Amino acid sequence: MSDFFAAHRATLDAALSAAETRGYWSAYPESPSPRVYGETAKADGTAAFEALLDRPFELDQPATSARVGAEVSPYGRPLGVSYPAADPDALVAAAKAAGKAWAAASPEDRAGVALEILARLNKQSFLIAEAVSHTTGQSFIMAFQAGGPHAQDRGLEAVAYAFAEMKRVPGAVRWEKPAGKGTVALDKAFRLVPRGVGLVIGCATFPTWNGYPGLFASLVTGNAVIVKPHPGAILPLAITVKIARDVLTEAGFDPNVVTLAADTVEAPLTKALATHADVGIVDFTGSPVFGRWLRENVRQALVYTEEAGVNPVVIDGTASFKGMCQNLAFSLSLYSGQMCTAPQNLFVPAGGIDTDEGHKSFDEVAAGLGKAIDGLLSDPDRAAGVLGAVQNPATLARIKAARSLGTVVRDSAPVDAPALAKARTATPLLLAVDAAAEDAYLEERFGPIAFVVKTTDTADSIARAAHSAKTRGAITAAVYSTDDAVIEAASAAFADAGVALSVNLTGGLYVNQSAAFSDFHVTGANPAGNACLTDTAFVAGRFRVVGIRTPVAA
Amino acid sequence: MSDFFAAHRATLDAALSAAETRGYWSAYPESPSPRVYGETAKADGTAAFEALLDRPFELDQPATSARVGAEVSPYGRPLGVSYPAADPDALVAAAKAAGKAWAAASPEDRAGVALEILARLNKQSFLIAEAVSHTTGQSFIMAFQAGGPHAQDRGLEAVAYAFAEMKRVPGAVRWEKPAGKGTVALDKAFRLVPRGVGLVIGCATFPTWNGYPGLFASLVTGNAVIVKPHPGAILPLAITVKIARDVLTEAGFDPNVVTLAADTVEAPLTKALATHADVGIVDFTGSPVFGRWLRENVRQALVYTEEAGVNPVVIDGTASFKGMCQNLAFSLSLYSGQMCTAPQNLFVPAGGIDTDEGHKSFDEVAAGLGKAIDGLLSDPDRAAGVLGAVQNPATLARIKAARSLGTVVRDSAPVDAPALAKARTATPLLLAVDAAAEDAYLEERFGPIAFVVKTTDTADSIARAAHSAKTRGAITAAVYSTDDAVIEAASAAFADAGVALSVNLTGGLYVNQSAAFSDFHVTGANPAGNACLTDTAFVAGRFRVVGIRTPVAA
Repeated sequence: MSDFFAAHRATLDAALSAAETRGYWSAYPESPSPRVYGETAKADGTAAFEALLDRPFELDQPATSARVGAEVSPYGRPLGVSYPAADPDALVAAAKAAGKAWAAASPEDRAGVALEILARLNKQSFLIAEAVSHTTGQSFIMAFQAGGPHAQDRGLEAVAYAFAEMKRVPGAVRWEKPAGKGTVALDKAFRLVPRGVGLVIGCATFPTWNGYPGLFASLVTGNAVIVKPHPGAILPLAITVKIARDVLTEAGFDPNVVTLAADTVEAPLTKALATHADVGIVDFTGSPVFGRWLRENVRQALVYTEEAGVNPVVIDGTASFKGMCQNLAFSLSLYSGQMCTAPQNLFVPAGGIDTDEGHKSFDEVAAGLGKAIDGLLSDPDRAAGVLGAVQNPATLARIKAARSLGTVVRDSAPVDAPALAKARTATPLLLAVDAAAEDAYLEERFGPIAFVVKTTDTADSIARAAHSAKTRGAITAAVYSTDDAVIEAASAAFADAGVALSVNLTGGLYVNQSAAFSDFHVTGANPAGNACLTDTAFVAGRFRVVGIRTPVAA
Repeated sequence: MSDFFAAHRATLDAALSAAETRGYWSAYPESPSPRVYGETAKADGTAAFEALLDRPFELDQPATSARVGAEVSPYGRPLGVSYPAADPDALVAAAKAAGKAWAAASPEDRAGVALEILARLNKQSFLIAEAVSHTTGQSFIMAFQAGGPHAQDRGLEAVAYAFAEMKRVPGAVRWEKPAGKGTVALDKAFRLVPRGVGLVIGCATFPTWNGYPGLFASLVTGNAVIVKPHPGAILPLAITVKIARDVLTEAGFDPNVVTLAADTVEAPLTKALATHADVGIVDFTGSPVFGRWLRENVRQALVYTEEAGVNPVVIDGTASFKGMCQNLAFSLSLYSGQMCTAPQNLFVPAGGIDTDEGHKSFDEVAAGLGKAIDGLLSDPDRAAGVLGAVQNPATLARIKAARSLGTVVRDSAPVDAPALAKARTATPLLLAVDAAAEDAYLEERFGPIAFVVKTTDTADSIARAAHSAKTRGAITAAVYSTDDAVIEAASAAFADAGVALSVNLTGGLYVNQSAAFSDFHVTGANPAGNACLTDTAFVAGRFRVVGIRTPVAA
């Protein structure tokens, strides 16, 4: 297993450096090009995916005689995959037993295993892409990038932070204190001990991207990990668990250091696992309702959450009206607005804004945004690639109900594209509302639903946007202005509200994007989540230090 | 204020280095020698202390018209000092308002202020010693060392950890990602934002040593701090707050960045402050009962606790029976057992142990410990210096009730020393019990109460001791053995139970001692507390990082 560490040492060193400098860096190529991943990689991945369908997914771990699994692709096809069901107590007991030797392994040995898992996940990026696409509804290219290399980068980032933190504790020191004419001395050894069994609760839209940081952070700090996927997106994490178990076995560890807790909507295991006395860490991505339940009821474990927010955009003015509208149209459309980073509320002054195309009234700004969405989605193939499919039928119902919340600027509709013939689809719904209609726009409306909110002026926009972030949560914010004072005011207000800000994005970079090793994803400083991917606070509590001191014979 | 940083830069650099290497280091001399602190320092400190007695303590901060304060020295004298009373909402509002400019200051400016506060506290170590001694009951020398330089070292340690953590985040970076033949680029700025108002809840026995880490960690990371002392030990923290406010004012900040929330046993402010919506961090030292209340009821803030434990000693054998007994006698007697690090349960096999003086039966071991305590305390002046006074009358009642819990090996009695004529005092009560009497010894019996517990054998001792640490909490553990296998078994068991271990202490170093920059005090891994003084986890969550990104013009 030390071979694994040696083999990946250069990757880890580069990751450690990237996490410090926080410029651009990536370990895993995001291009699905045959030149990068091999001529047959895509076909192999598709074949491997199809070979998994309509049969039991094999996983040799503690299980009951039952099987679970009822995933249906948002593109139309039931996956027909079943997974071993598990008794929570048996799973935790197995994790605990397997965790003993894992806890005793060195940080290097554990990091080596984690890095080898990531390397093998990277090789399986096309398979993972198919699994992510057919559970989340993401388009293939997005599922490849966000579910594959970008998720792997996030996992590696967590490994790097955790490894750095563990290595800051010296293994042994001599403590020599002056005493009279001589010294008194103690030899001190420091042992790193894990917090307890880690539980990773996955979400239905980004099972790997959101799941890997907690999984790898807990794992590398010495905790066995139980992965509890969303019942609608089990396969990507089942593949991940299988790969992890293979590597653990090869490295001489009990594979139960990583197990899968597949369950059903009807009989969820999450609460029993999260409150189990031996579970010491819970990582959760999902709804604020369940996030709150965890924060209030899990007393024995650290709880790291990414919940949700109402992401604001403040539109004060722009040097490129077209660029702004196109940029926002893409952000609103990408994966049909099912990203935790997608904007929901666009605050525009009642008096309109100044632009490179002259003054635009409130209605003209709203119409410009609507037209840009139409333009982006006019080509069916491009529309399919941008929008993907809708993960959950409830989102369609939510769109339907939302139509009455304001004046429809641009209506939502299914996508008429050959690639999406059997898929559940919806283009963005854009509504105009007055700032007073807080009941309409201050609630998170998950999916392709956005509001153009009419405010008194930009100061009012900033105040409302920052207040909404502070009270309802926000993961991203954006501002468009040609006035430095407005940009600084927005920077200060959103910093105070604990939300990352993007300024004047008009080109090929979008507010939705969050880059590993550079962007701090979620700040932990507003209701959108209590944790950040990835900072030191995300890893430092996952292990503890125990000192052993012995007098040095005089 | 940048002068403060420059003036103390070398101290900070040395502290940063010490926190990494964790060998011996101290910034503030622990010797109260006139050669170190000046010929008149002790007399000046005593005079300054006496000048504070029997009058209002002046503190120009938001206050109601009432005054509070009813401290009575455990040495007999009512202090007669009153403090401004405060309305919790007004105090939090003032902290919040003062915190804005404090949050906007650089880490360097904030560290400079913190280091200047520590330097001035150090100069007032004799005054602080009087205040600590006459509230906690510690002997003067202990009050000087633990309440002065050692507490200041713990504060500095927190400053160093927090400063290092803040400096790991770059202020600004350019993110350049390859795209086609060129790159796309974002300029990213990272702002550090504080978590919220910090609340430090002090204890009655070590108000400064346990209070400074949270105070300085929250302060230097940009949070205004409200200090809520124990009603029985207000003065040491009132002096601390006054010095902090002086330095803040000189540095151009609103002094309400640090305020005092003195209250009474009858009308405590703690719950109202701890659950206030604007309080973001709570540091608590005190009883497990209130610690649990905080952990279960404070939903809006990070909560760091040091509660209490039942510290075990495993006695398997020794190469110096006399050295062992003398060492443990001192640990049991020091400050009348009122240290969170004092041993309570000494596990000895029923068959006795092998020593350099031959085999000793269980009863002989118990008697040896009792005799060593008698010997240590035979000289009244030395007894006064070691024991000090008893902080709380309830401790005397606890001793009385404890006598019936086992066979009295050595009885507790008041100390007949001139220096303690009016003081509340008690020597250690040592009881022998069978291991089955868990109701007697598994409960924390705060004060000079200890049990010699008769076990089947050393394996039984280790198992019981580690289990008690895991389930009831422990801050220290000790083992005496000449067998390396026993020492390793104890090391593994106590590491698993999350408690620091001292091995074969027979000389002038004691299990009670915890050295800043070297020992991790409390692990956070058992019920004795959820936080460690000081590790990265103690500081990393006290601030958050907010990114602001702007495209670089192509």
